[in-house]
Amino acid sequence: MLSYKAPIADIKFLFEDVFNYYEHYQKHPEFEEATPDLVDAIMEECAKFSENELLPLNQSGDEEGCTFDNGVVTTPKGFKEAYQKFVEGGWPSLPHAVEHGGQGLPASLGMVMSEMMGTANWSWAMYPGLSHGAMNTIHTHGTDEQKELYLTRLIEGSWTGTMCLTEPQCGTDLGQVKTKAEPNGDGTYNLTGTKIFISAGEHDLTENIIHIVLARLPGAPEGTKGISLFIVPKNQTDEQGTIGEFNNVSCGSIEHKMGIKASVTAVLNFDNAKGVLIGPENKGLECMFTFMNTARVGTALQGVCAAELAYQNSLIYAKERLSMRSLSGTKHPEKVADPIIVHPDVRKMLMTQKAISEGGRAMIYYTAKLVDEIENGKSEEERKKADNRLGFITPILKAFLTELGQESANHGLQIFGGHGFIKEWGMEQIVRDTRISTLYEGTTGIQALDLLGRKVLMTRGKSLNAFAKEVLIFCKDKSMISSNPHRRQMNKFIWPLSTTVAKWQQYTIRLGLKAKKDRDVIGSASVDFLMYSGYIVMAYFWAQMAQAAYEKLATDVENRDFYRAKIKTAEFYFERLLPRTKSLAVTMMADPKTLMQLDEELLSFL
Amino acid sequence: MLSYKAPIADIKFLFEDVFNYYEHYQKHPEFEEATPDLVDAIMEECAKFSENELLPLNQSGDEEGCTFDNGVVTTPKGFKEAYQKFVEGGWPSLPHAVEHGGQGLPASLGMVMSEMMGTANWSWAMYPGLSHGAMNTIHTHGTDEQKELYLTRLIEGSWTGTMCLTEPQCGTDLGQVKTKAEPNGDGTYNLTGTKIFISAGEHDLTENIIHIVLARLPGAPEGTKGISLFIVPKNQTDEQGTIGEFNNVSCGSIEHKMGIKASVTAVLNFDNAKGVLIGPENKGLECMFTFMNTARVGTALQGVCAAELAYQNSLIYAKERLSMRSLSGTKHPEKVADPIIVHPDVRKMLMTQKAISEGGRAMIYYTAKLVDEIENGKSEEERKKADNRLGFITPILKAFLTELGQESANHGLQIFGGHGFIKEWGMEQIVRDTRISTLYEGTTGIQALDLLGRKVLMTRGKSLNAFAKEVLIFCKDKSMISSNPHRRQMNKFIWPLSTTVAKWQQYTIRLGLKAKKDRDVIGSASVDFLMYSGYIVMAYFWAQMAQAAYEKLATDVENRDFYRAKIKTAEFYFERLLPRTKSLAVTMMADPKTLMQLDEELLSFL
Repeated sequence: MLSYKAPIADIKFLFEDVFNYYEHYQKHPEFEEATPDLVDAIMEECAKFSENELLPLNQSGDEEGCTFDNGVVTTPKGFKEAYQKFVEGGWPSLPHAVEHGGQGLPASLGMVMSEMMGTANWSWAMYPGLSHGAMNTIHTHGTDEQKELYLTRLIEGSWTGTMCLTEPQCGTDLGQVKTKAEPNGDGTYNLTGTKIFISAGEHDLTENIIHIVLARLPGAPEGTKGISLFIVPKNQTDEQGTIGEFNNVSCGSIEHKMGIKASVTAVLNFDNAKGVLIGPENKGLECMFTFMNTARVGTALQGVCAAELAYQNSLIYAKERLSMRSLSGTKHPEKVADPIIVHPDVRKMLMTQKAISEGGRAMIYYTAKLVDEIENGKSEEERKKADNRLGFITPILKAFLTELGQESANHGLQIFGGHGFIKEWGMEQIVRDTRISTLYEGTTGIQALDLLGRKVLMTRGKSLNAFAKEVLIFCKDKSMISSNPHRRQMNKFIWPLSTTVAKWQQYTIRLGLKAKKDRDVIGSASVDFLMYSGYIVMAYFWAQMAQAAYEKLATDVENRDFYRAKIKTAEFYFERLLPRTKSLAVTMMADPKTLMQLDEELLSFL
Repeated sequence: MLSYKAPIADIKFLFEDVFNYYEHYQKHPEFEEATPDLVDAIMEECAKFSENELLPLNQSGDEEGCTFDNGVVTTPKGFKEAYQKFVEGGWPSLPHAVEHGGQGLPASLGMVMSEMMGTANWSWAMYPGLSHGAMNTIHTHGTDEQKELYLTRLIEGSWTGTMCLTEPQCGTDLGQVKTKAEPNGDGTYNLTGTKIFISAGEHDLTENIIHIVLARLPGAPEGTKGISLFIVPKNQTDEQGTIGEFNNVSCGSIEHKMGIKASVTAVLNFDNAKGVLIGPENKGLECMFTFMNTARVGTALQGVCAAELAYQNSLIYAKERLSMRSLSGTKHPEKVADPIIVHPDVRKMLMTQKAISEGGRAMIYYTAKLVDEIENGKSEEERKKADNRLGFITPILKAFLTELGQESANHGLQIFGGHGFIKEWGMEQIVRDTRISTLYEGTTGIQALDLLGRKVLMTRGKSLNAFAKEVLIFCKDKSMISSNPHRRQMNKFIWPLSTTVAKWQQYTIRLGLKAKKDRDVIGSASVDFLMYSGYIVMAYFWAQMAQAAYEKLATDVENRDFYRAKIKTAEFYFERLLPRTKSLAVTMMADPKTLMQLDEELLSFL
């Protein structure tokens, strides 16, 4: 049976000691309600809801899955009731606009909610998660009428939303989208086509579902430049939102998947379904991609959730399971054997999980602050700066944290030995559930091309250098006697961090030069470059956490163990995980020839 | 739908061009029947059986699983019929002793059979696989009567066998075994206890199941020195093998697992079940561990099977699926998009799978030759030498190849994008099925302790140095003008291989010195040391394959593409996979303090 306790102490450490969230909230008058008292209360309530309502449905949801019967989808037992409590608790409205019924709290606080609920039950959290994407899209691109009709109901949670992009012939390559939208002459359109892989595409949680759909207008240009965005409800409504006729959006089947089985993945057939255009004609992809970064950060979070859940459960098991004696001498002579936590390799897996979970969490809350700035920055310049930083860091978060989330989930399973392979312990489910995270919202390969191709090389390294500068300023500041009384202790982090960042910049220049001669250099280097970047970025946050911990240890008489543990975990990260950059530096610089020289017909001789 | 073609060309390359198998067979008069013609015919028949009978049951077996009803286990549809064909084809007897009805063919040829059947359907292949372990045990430790009664029927396949080690409280730590064996005074014993995780422990394929069981005699010493081995049939029989009364070995339940769902995993309750002792009293673990190495090589094979199956299927998909255009210029302008195989990162995943599958296969067939030598070596010295080499290389094969098999399976899933997560394609099943391989027959952590602790440090590096010497002799020989006309082309492999081997020896000495001061060094370094060793060992085989390919290219006018592809894959391995040793060299030498300094109570603050 899986257990979960929300890591409130760790989140508060990031909010209070590392990222100065309250200072950040106070700078924005619209966030003045987000006081420490309110945030603490929200964290505690959210933890309770996640631990008590969502966690108990995690394994039963997997076991039962969603069921499909003649177009009707039933979510697993308890999902609907939990959703109702979620709505009654006012959770859907938390980070949304006051003028449409939201609570107007910062996006970063929404991330805390997503983390806790997502760790307790990722499948369940997918339903509100998809809704969130639809809400953001309508909020930014919708007309006042669209907001009044759709957004208010999504915010109150009485309806949910989806994003309908993928079709059978295309996922990444959306230029191939075929779904058609025929104008009816009255401002509405009839949509016809098939969408697949639609999360939350059909379910029994709410009376209506609002689909945001990519489709082509008649005569639209081919490829990505001829795609428009539409709002298509499952059921038609009048202007007051009263449900009317079925809108011919039918669920043809649901997918049988490796994991997140309680999260429905629908095939949706649009058969002259009536919808309205949202945003300008033929600009659908741009509108959709407004929230690509935040959606991807939301998926990056899945890596942290998997790492945390796996860590918590394997830690409990490692303390309880008795097997063999410690090689450095029996630790518990009163027991028939020592608990496996005494074995260094078990400890290595646990520390790796811990470093990934806490390091990943820091990356997420750093980025959540950027999202606050983009939405509520005081000047265009501030918003632009945050947006550039977000654009740079998003593919790193998405790919690196989901890859590491999988590693952590697999360590968790491995710590359980043979029992990890058995369903009842829940560890194999974490591996299955999180396996989707490197695929949806853009695979690891796509994130890597986005990072190295678009974000780094197309800006001639500007975005990377801006981030590197931030890190190097931190390194300089923390190594100076004038600004850091803990500089001697911090040396062990500052030195490897600053040298690795310098190499990162050098390698980037070399890759840029090589890519000018051979475009395949980008794809050949991209994933290793992304992972290399990820380890450096995470090192920066581990160094920041260590610095914050040293500062607290100098002044705070409470929680000293917590701060000491942070520092020791930072030491682990720098000695055991950051060195992975050494191999990546070699392989990312390897000649693309080793990948491409073998003719594709010669890859196999069967 | 999964597809599979047995890689006969690759296996023949190893047999004929790399390992000189026929010369090896000719040296042993008992293998004189294993001529190229017979071996070719066996390979082709085995390929047919695997492709036509076993593959079609792979996905349906997973879907259906084994069912349990009041002690009775039913295997998935078609399993029993396939097993009957397997028996009718004479397959179970292939590598077993002629005097008990076997065909007396070499163990290495049994490995070919295991590879093909295991790739087509690992779950199905588990049933004969477990039988094989029981046969080996009875063959070596059984009395003539035991062989006559049990071994002949296992060899003909009319009964199957199991190995019953694990109990709820212990898997790795068999000193905790509690099952009791009470002597009846007539040479038989009554066994009582519970065994879990018993593969093939109960099924409907045969009328009897022969369990090899670890249990304690009354008054036996505590721990591992008080464990004896017993033969306990599911049903009692008379001396002619006629089935009599039920022997009180009941299946209490079967496990619900992440994968290999068609392979039953039984909880067996022994309730005064009658058995006979096999081998000396209290020497059960030694007897059981006679075949530990070969059983572990059999599990290592699962890594190669997973890698091969994933590779074959993702290669097909990568050639068919159209998405985006090549960054280095459109490759198929006539299509709506290029097939994804044009993208370097997809190619990187495919080449990684290919290098793992073919490199792993070479490691397996090198080792299978050692097993032949152990069983049929001419002198005690030859047998001893082969046994030492096998003891050294086994933990590397088991852990390294199963870890890499998982990597390859995951690349396969990843190449399919979102479709990889959907059951019908079968890619997620490969990931689930192979996840067990790093757990059973000793986890990766246990293999690593066996390698670094027992095999390397306890022999003062002798076993490692003996292997390193073999590699360095190869390097020297292949870089000399007198013995190798291809030495210039081989330089790119010989240089990195010989330098890495030299470092391997140096690091081993340093670890030995460090371990004298701190025993936790062993556990702290072990897994990284094992993976480090694995990459070097695989590099040795890639260099051998490249050498063989150069030699064939100089003389053979056929199959030139095959040999060229081998060389290019070797280049890929050396440039993209071998450099992983760089990071492992750092982390394996890291101070154990980074793992152990954090008190276990401070690992969490929830």
